[in-house]
Amino acid sequence: MLLAARPVGLPRPTDWKLLEVPVGEPDEGEFLVQVRYLSLDPAMRGWMNEGRSYIRPVEIGEVMRAGAVGRVISSRHPGFAVGDHVSGAFGVQEYCVSDGRDVTIVDPALAPLPVYLGTLGMTGITAYFGLLDVGRPQPGQTVVVSAAAGAVGSVVGQIAKLLGCRVIGIAGGEHKCRLVVDEFGFDAAIDYRSEDVQKALRQHAPDGVDVYFDNVGGDILDAVLTRLARGARIVICGAISQYNNTEPVKGPSNYMSLLVNRASMTGMVVFDYADRYSEAVAKLAEWLAAGQLRSMEDVFPGGVSAFPETLLRLFRGENRGKLVLQVADE
Amino acid sequence: MLLAARPVGLPRPTDWKLLEVPVGEPDEGEFLVQVRYLSLDPAMRGWMNEGRSYIRPVEIGEVMRAGAVGRVISSRHPGFAVGDHVSGAFGVQEYCVSDGRDVTIVDPALAPLPVYLGTLGMTGITAYFGLLDVGRPQPGQTVVVSAAAGAVGSVVGQIAKLLGCRVIGIAGGEHKCRLVVDEFGFDAAIDYRSEDVQKALRQHAPDGVDVYFDNVGGDILDAVLTRLARGARIVICGAISQYNNTEPVKGPSNYMSLLVNRASMTGMVVFDYADRYSEAVAKLAEWLAAGQLRSMEDVFPGGVSAFPETLLRLFRGENRGKLVLQVADE
Repeated sequence: MLLAARPVGLPRPTDWKLLEVPVGEPDEGEFLVQVRYLSLDPAMRGWMNEGRSYIRPVEIGEVMRAGAVGRVISSRHPGFAVGDHVSGAFGVQEYCVSDGRDVTIVDPALAPLPVYLGTLGMTGITAYFGLLDVGRPQPGQTVVVSAAAGAVGSVVGQIAKLLGCRVIGIAGGEHKCRLVVDEFGFDAAIDYRSEDVQKALRQHAPDGVDVYFDNVGGDILDAVLTRLARGARIVICGAISQYNNTEPVKGPSNYMSLLVNRASMTGMVVFDYADRYSEAVAKLAEWLAAGQLRSMEDVFPGGVSAFPETLLRLFRGENRGKLVLQVADE
Repeated sequence: MLLAARPVGLPRPTDWKLLEVPVGEPDEGEFLVQVRYLSLDPAMRGWMNEGRSYIRPVEIGEVMRAGAVGRVISSRHPGFAVGDHVSGAFGVQEYCVSDGRDVTIVDPALAPLPVYLGTLGMTGITAYFGLLDVGRPQPGQTVVVSAAAGAVGSVVGQIAKLLGCRVIGIAGGEHKCRLVVDEFGFDAAIDYRSEDVQKALRQHAPDGVDVYFDNVGGDILDAVLTRLARGARIVICGAISQYNNTEPVKGPSNYMSLLVNRASMTGMVVFDYADRYSEAVAKLAEWLAAGQLRSMEDVFPGGVSAFPETLLRLFRGENRGKLVLQVADE
């Protein structure tokens, strides 16, 4: 699936082009992967835009970038054997020739393959370092997470609970809020569609918010800013509410609360932790194995051709946990 | 001078009330100060608003809060003798009875009294800790300061130069920009009134901005956000462009640059450093004495009754360095 045009607002079908080409042959030092599952992420919307960001944009006519898991079906690489299951940025396509760079071998006996795109993949690692390294919550402190039923948010909240924090999730709709409390074990959930977030925070976080892990930006960020505790840390992980804006981004009007509360707002990009990924994955896998962490994947069928429509589920807030597209049968 | 009403927008004459009352008599453990100079600060505008902030608001009918220096003219306090020069929050009035809390004895032989309100007072201390503790610039890095000809900004930039940084000041008007370069020794100045700040930063800070010390907020903060270097630190010290807003504060639309650049934005309030004030003052005094730091005070005559009008000079950007109101002859 190629990016055919730079979207304005929500990506439309005409922004994509499906191309059928012969499957590539691996050269010496390469191997061929059959892609099984694709990771669908809000950040993809940013990669479709032109201009300087934390990663280069996907070019027009280029295969859309995507994290994926698959199986090696032929190999001329000493480190990867036929039958190995692998995780890497294989893109929105059915087959990918890889030289093994930034590719990890994963074990489907330890966890189902889609988990390697979520809790044991980039979103889980993002949650781990974003919370622990940037948010730095202390036991007993109050942690608030937006997009709390999503792939990153659900893991952030569960780690915060494991640390002994009071954890409040913000999510859209009654069903997701129930999920956040009942499945992910948060102390409370706020439904931003039906509740006044600022008022609800006053109730659920009476002593203020020590750590806010933000995936959404916009009005919710502004509401949380009004309820910061002294010395609060805001982790800027994403701003899904703003990604499809055709108007300028809404900046946080209440940012002077950072001064009043001696608080900080810090951006994080998971790639900076590349040399510590294994540390996060080991810990996350340990928690998963011990039943202390619940991983949720929302797997949709349909293959590569269903990618454009499935991606939109993220921006409509329809996914629960990690949104995954199945490309081939296991 | 009492606060008579909560201003909407710029403070008007009717927001103040001048009251003449008999001078108080110090009780046991107190002393009487004749106020010589008053410190006029942008933060005063915030103190006039109702609602939670980093310090309680000045109440309607209360003497307006102000830092001041003066002379002890009668004393029943063992630590303060008649003739001592003192610095403290004596308020916008000619005489003040004090119990000595948060009052410092200053030496007019070391520096003129107004300097104790500026470079050796709260604004100098704010510059010192805001830059060193929150901004943490390294030699060779690029530091940008807004309100660069003001009391805080001029000291921030000079300290950054002493540390071996490349320093760019943003100020309003040609005269101030000349001051910033010629008197305060910055490497460059950007006149936000006549220049495109973003474009000028591209020229003067081609490798990006490592530390931005923000006193103004608004469009200038947004412009600097577009030019951050990886890992940049933004110090939120003030937002004078927004203090007299009658519309909601303009939040920084480009805040997602914090994510792209793994940057942080942190609020600071000088009061948090109370137990380290003496460290800052000692260092600032040493630099002053060595001629490495230029202190500039803009002293206006007129006494307490001139306070309302003189304060407005700050919001019209008319002051150079520290704005001081003279209340009594030395």
